[in-house]
Amino acid sequence: VPVADRGLHYGDGLFETIAVVAGQPCLWDRHLSRLRLGCERLAIPVTDPAQLRREADTLCRGVERGVLKLLLTRGEGGRGYRPPLEPVPRRILSLHPWPDHPSTSWQQGVRIRWCDTPLGLNPRLAGIKHCNRLEQVMARAEWSDPGIAEGLMCDADGQVVEGTQSNLFLWRGGELLTPSLARCGVAGIGRGLLMELAGESAIRVREGAVSRDQVMAADGLLLSNALIGVWPVAALGEHNFDPAHYPRDLLARMMERIHLP
Amino acid sequence: VPVADRGLHYGDGLFETIAVVAGQPCLWDRHLSRLRLGCERLAIPVTDPAQLRREADTLCRGVERGVLKLLLTRGEGGRGYRPPLEPVPRRILSLHPWPDHPSTSWQQGVRIRWCDTPLGLNPRLAGIKHCNRLEQVMARAEWSDPGIAEGLMCDADGQVVEGTQSNLFLWRGGELLTPSLARCGVAGIGRGLLMELAGESAIRVREGAVSRDQVMAADGLLLSNALIGVWPVAALGEHNFDPAHYPRDLLARMMERIHLP
Repeated sequence: VPVADRGLHYGDGLFETIAVVAGQPCLWDRHLSRLRLGCERLAIPVTDPAQLRREADTLCRGVERGVLKLLLTRGEGGRGYRPPLEPVPRRILSLHPWPDHPSTSWQQGVRIRWCDTPLGLNPRLAGIKHCNRLEQVMARAEWSDPGIAEGLMCDADGQVVEGTQSNLFLWRGGELLTPSLARCGVAGIGRGLLMELAGESAIRVREGAVSRDQVMAADGLLLSNALIGVWPVAALGEHNFDPAHYPRDLLARMMERIHLP
Repeated sequence: VPVADRGLHYGDGLFETIAVVAGQPCLWDRHLSRLRLGCERLAIPVTDPAQLRREADTLCRGVERGVLKLLLTRGEGGRGYRPPLEPVPRRILSLHPWPDHPSTSWQQGVRIRWCDTPLGLNPRLAGIKHCNRLEQVMARAEWSDPGIAEGLMCDADGQVVEGTQSNLFLWRGGELLTPSLARCGVAGIGRGLLMELAGESAIRVREGAVSRDQVMAADGLLLSNALIGVWPVAALGEHNFDPAHYPRDLLARMMERIHLP
């Protein structure tokens, strides 16, 4: 990558992390929609989706299971922060091994913890998957115990937002509550899918402010992302959640859906 | 730059923009101190300062006037956001032409405006010059009129923080007030120097919360950075400031100091 790329200097770009199963990038249209929204928000020209798909297909051919990372930067140039008037975006597609999460995580649940690193509040950057990720990097550096699968992050006002690489759902009284992403956080592809599947199962899903107290008072917690599908939480710090309470049918449908192209 | 560099993927790095005059990087020790603080905050190993200086000197040799950019990323590797346990930082030194600001700006003052893009609040990232700069990129994209030299940014709570590439000082009643950078913003090298010079001139400088009303009620505004030194503000939007009110001696000392190695 040329040294003048603005992705390198300012994190001036967007990315998608896409599950690859049986040679196909999964949930492609959803990933591309979020990428397009990010391009609009940052005023980066949208790459032709058909071209991206051809490149992705070529890279994924013959891959039984893997991860496709699609990185799109604003490209080179501009004087300082000021973006060039006619940017020529750079796209970088790379293939990575499937993460070695235990395959039983979605049935047995995972152990998670709280992170101290806060998420800054900025509605202009909320929801999209841009490359300014120092907050997640710092939060993920807070623990090294491989038995801890994820850490929950709060915003600068102390409201609970998401995991470092997943979205959070609270399960209580037969309903789901997930933090609003209007002021910070990433609108995960897994999150959108889980909300849809819940709707199809007549499980009500609300978005709103979520406090730490609400998290601790939930019947259970779920984490979603496009690679893991959904994980129930067995323990948050010292607090255990009873796996018996989880909506098993919904979880099974999510796992089935996420592993099919 | 290798495609796996974390600077490219997450903005996982730091930078310094250093004035070069007569073959010498100016205010080197101050830039290196801030870089070291950034390294400590992000847990990036500190590069040997003597080695950096040798490389900088080699690059700057024979340069009458220019800009040295020092970019330090965490280097490659790590699974997702999680930083590698023993990162090997990558340093990139590059030389750029001196910006073509009118040389009379510091005497006649500049026209500036307000930006709409807010600065997110995050004490962990405040003060240091890290590479997560999408907020500044978006703010700088708000105007293209070359007659506007800078834009002022507020934080998510509406407090005034800084310019897109400079720090702000309010001049009122013979004293200076500059926004606190405890929750967001960059602690500029020019800012630190101007505060020192003000102290030597027995001009009181306070740091604190600054509202838009306070900005509009100031006798005058000053902008500082390591390349421009200090600019008085002639107009903020439709509001004019009277150049007669500025502390001329302080400005002259700052310009003298900033242009000497």
